[in-house]
Formats: sequence, structure tokens, C-alpha cells
Amino acid sequence: MYRPQIKVLDCTIRDGGLMNNSNFSLDLVRSVYKAACESGIDYVELGYRNSKKKFSVTEYGPWRFCDEINLRKAVEGIESKKGTKIAIMQDAHKADPEDILPKSESVVDMIRVATYVKDIDKAIRLANNATDKGYLATINIMSISKALERELDEALIQIEKETNVIAVYIVDSYGALYSEDIDYFVDKFKTILRNKEIGVHCHNQQQLAFANTIAGIIRGANYLDGSLYGLGRAAGNCPTELLLGFLKNPKFDIRPILDVISEKILPLTKEIRWGYAIPYMISGILNRHPQESMRIMELPDDNPEKWNFRKFYEKLTEEGED
Amino acid sequence: MYRPQIKVLDCTIRDGGLMNNSNFSLDLVRSVYKAACESGIDYVELGYRNSKKKFSVTEYGPWRFCDEINLRKAVEGIESKKGTKIAIMQDAHKADPEDILPKSESVVDMIRVATYVKDIDKAIRLANNATDKGYLATINIMSISKALERELDEALIQIEKETNVIAVYIVDSYGALYSEDIDYFVDKFKTILRNKEIGVHCHNQQQLAFANTIAGIIRGANYLDGSLYGLGRAAGNCPTELLLGFLKNPKFDIRPILDVISEKILPLTKEIRWGYAIPYMISGILNRHPQESMRIMELPDDNPEKWNFRKFYEKLTEEGED
Repeated sequence: MYRPQIKVLDCTIRDGGLMNNSNFSLDLVRSVYKAACESGIDYVELGYRNSKKKFSVTEYGPWRFCDEINLRKAVEGIESKKGTKIAIMQDAHKADPEDILPKSESVVDMIRVATYVKDIDKAIRLANNATDKGYLATINIMSISKALERELDEALIQIEKETNVIAVYIVDSYGALYSEDIDYFVDKFKTILRNKEIGVHCHNQQQLAFANTIAGIIRGANYLDGSLYGLGRAAGNCPTELLLGFLKNPKFDIRPILDVISEKILPLTKEIRWGYAIPYMISGILNRHPQESMRIMELPDDNPEKWNFRKFYEKLTEEGED
Repeated sequence: MYRPQIKVLDCTIRDGGLMNNSNFSLDLVRSVYKAACESGIDYVELGYRNSKKKFSVTEYGPWRFCDEINLRKAVEGIESKKGTKIAIMQDAHKADPEDILPKSESVVDMIRVATYVKDIDKAIRLANNATDKGYLATINIMSISKALERELDEALIQIEKETNVIAVYIVDSYGALYSEDIDYFVDKFKTILRNKEIGVHCHNQQQLAFANTIAGIIRGANYLDGSLYGLGRAAGNCPTELLLGFLKNPKFDIRPILDVISEKILPLTKEIRWGYAIPYMISGILNRHPQESMRIMELPDDNPEKWNFRKFYEKLTEEGED
């Protein structure tokens, strides 16, 4: 038995792009898109459409901007027989509404707006810009494990009243949530959001991304993010392959996903270090942004600081909340 | 708030020994034991006491047999200020009762008997041998995701009636269970076992070992297995460091665990390949013994079969149940 309302979104290119400044080759992006189409994944997120005023085009790769011409190169000639749609993300505080073309001029189907609670007005502006121009839109509330209750409630009420987004996401940026927290947030979202679906986007700092996604499903979330072999920031995301293994919708076929992991994603492990590691774990259990642990992980192997986990743990616990 | 009845058992040496024929150095075993003592872990499992008639002493290392003299070498001079106890495991079908000394002659506190449902009578004999000789004992029901309902029920009824074990474990050898399955088994165990604690021992084939251990805690299991950095068969176990990060008992101190992971466990990753990998994932989602996926993982890197995940997936799905 399966719930037909469930939509799986693969965010490999977008979230993985946080680990390499969105510098994926066109071949890789095409391969991921093709595999997702063949596997019956509902949405593929091909990157950010963030502002070139905020990100240097020499420092960041094409998938930080997702120019229409590059998106077309990524998808042209690839058949989407099972109806796979294309998503891109805009950061509420790093993107411009003017960068979004009318839907009729774009291959994009859905625009996801990522925001901190404090930037909710910017997010709503971007989301309404997207829906006004003919796209599906979502608002994804980042760093939710640090959100202040009253501000979060107000943001959700605003989203409900002021937007036509299709879904609102619980984003566990810090990988700090336990399943009981997912239950709590899904219940809260359901209470306030009467006309919108609920999404979950989890990080794996505590090896809970897949489990928390299942917790979300059980509680009623229908929009689920995954990435291939978990490729994403820090310890990465819920592995898409595990999600497809769990979901029973017969339209899903895990095999093209297995192929692309073998051929294209595993070779990336030589350049990009994502997945469970002790510094990420420490930031997860302490409910901290992964930027400090990412700095530790990027140290050269012969730097003893990289391996002094006790010191890192004590530093984070002593300096208190961020 | 915490539940004082909860006991954490670190099985690094025992379960990790399934990946290297129990060939750990004495220094490593002492370091793990010392860190566990300093961290306040309740039990440390130092290996198997299996029969030398069943395992070659030249092929297998000392921690497959745990001769008393070796156990003493592993623990002597190390203070256990927080009351850390020593456990060893006997396999129901690979161990002899005669290999167990009277408790007064041993440093061991607890003997855990691992068994398939079909071998329950052998397990009960070993468990009663242990309790008769003065030890605490548990029975750990392996491969529970394949157990036939009626046989499992009968085994549990026998354990309840015929033994004085302190706990009975749900062992997810295949890493195939979801949290709803853990709920189901804990409820079943609780119904039949009126005078015994319930334990959970999870494998990480689907990255659910930690999450399922939490599910067990929420449902009432008090005996929890973990291993350092997840070191254990195939994708490994619930990482002890995550468990200590979750549990709130102030007696636990994660820092000695972080030290030993850095100094002794991470170097093992050069020789032993445990942790999440696609072949393990495939055997987990298909509820299969990891032996086939372990064979794939042991192939040399230049053997294309190692990376043909689709073929492996199709082979397992086509050949049906094992």
C-alpha cells in the first residue's frame, strides 16, 4: 500500500552544490536528471537560482545560478516518461525576483524558496513572485531546530494567509532533530497550514535523515527530499535510494538510481567529503550550524586539530549557543 | 530526564570481530575497555567465547575465544570507577557450556547467548549454564526479521518459563527493520516476557540503527547495544557516540569515547570496510543476510562486479527469499 500524494524530490545537485560551490559538470547533472526520470522521481532540483550580485560567477559554478540556457543543456533530449518535474531553489536573502522568467519561457516547474524564519517576508515575496509567474512554489524553513516558537508560528500563519505555495518544508539544517521533534513540527504545521502540504528535508549529522523522513511520512508529510548516496552539506541528506527502497509506489524503479550512484556519484567521493563523521556528529548532537564542523573537516589530514574531537566538542559546549 | 534502568552495552570488539576474525590487538581492546569505563558505559563486550572445536585458533584471533587469561590481560590495571561490567557472547550453535568457568574464577559479569529461533533449546542450555555458574545472562534473538511468528512466540514463552536471563534482545542482523517493526517486536516481547528486560541490537544497512535504537527506547527497551563509530558487521551497528549524545544520564561522558575513536578506531578504517555502502543497503531493503553483500564488498576495486549494483540487486530479487 502506498500514499499517492507522496512526492519525492532529489536535491543532489542543489544540496551537494553546497560542498563544491555548485561546480558539477554538465555530464553529471544530465546523468542525475536522466536517472531520476527513469526512476520515476517526482522532482529533480538542479541547483539554486541565486543572485549574481551575491555570488561571484568565477567562484561559483553554473548550478548556483541555473541560467535558463544551462538548465536547457542539462535536460534537453532526456525523456521524462514518468512525469519528473524540474525544481530550482532561491535563497530568501540571496536571490532576486527579477531573475525568474515567466513560466512559459522556462523549463522549470517549481521554485523552492529557502528561508530562515527571520527572512519570512523576503521568502513570501519570492514565493509569490514564482506563483504569479506561473510556477509551483514551496517555502522551506531552514535551521528549524533553532527557530523561536512564537516567530515560527507567526511565519507559518503568514505563509498560510499570504501565499499559494504548494508545500512548506521542515528543514533540519543542523541534523539535530529526533523523530519526536519531527512529530512535533509536522503536527504544528498541520494545525496552521490548512491548504498546504508539508515537506521534510533532513540532514544526516546524527544518521537520522532517513529515519526522520520516515517519521515525517508516518505523521503526514508528503513532500520528501533525498539525495543520491546522501550527497549534500556536511553529513549529507536522506539517501534517495533508501527512500525509494521504503516507498511502495510501483512507479518507482531503484535501478537507474543504483547505476548513477555507481558511475557518477561514487567517483565524487574522491573530491568531496560528505557523510557521517565525528565533527558533524558533534555539531548535530549540540544543535549547531555545521559550518564549524565543515571547517574542521576541511583541515589537511596532517593537522592534529582535525582529529582532536574532544577539543572541538569542548569548544562548542563551552562557547554556548550560536 | 532519563530512565535509570537503561543500560548501554558497547559491542565494538565482539561485533567488529566479525569483520576481522576477531583479530584485534591487545592494545586496541584495552583502549576500548578503558574509554568505555571512563565514559560510564554499563557493559563492554570483549568478544565471543566460542568453541575451539568450531573455530580454528590459527585462523581466528583471541577475541573469538576470550580465554580467561586474555580477558585478564585486556582489563588489568584499568579502573572501572563507574561500574562498567564485562560481557562476552556465546553463539548457541557454536559454543560449549564447558568453556564457562564458575563466576568466581572469571572477570566476566555477563554472558550473552546469540541464537536463531530454531536453536532456542541450545541457547537456553547455554543461558542456564551461565546463570547456574553465577553470571548474568541474556538471550539475543538474531535474524529476527526472518523469524516465523509462531516459532518466535514459542521461543519467547520458553525463555520466560525456563530461564533466568536478565534481558532478551531483538537482533536486527539484516538491518531490515523499520521503526514500526521495532515497535511491533518490543510490544510482543513485553507481552510474553513479564520478568525480563528487552534489548535492541541494530544494524545500519539502511542507516536506521540509531533511529531504531531510539524507537526501542521509546517503546520500553532498556538494554541498548552500540559500537564505536558503528564498527560491526557489514554496515555496522548503532554508533555508541550517538547513543551517548542522546541519553541524558549525567553519568555518561562522551569525551573518552571521542578520544578512542580518533586514536584507535579511525585507523582501522584502512583495514576494515564497515559502514553504509550500496551492497549492504540492497541486502537491507531486501531483508537478506549480509553475507552476499559482504562478498561483493570484499572484491578487489578493479573487479567491475563490485560496482554493478543493478546486477546485484536483480540477482537478489530474482533468486527470491533465502
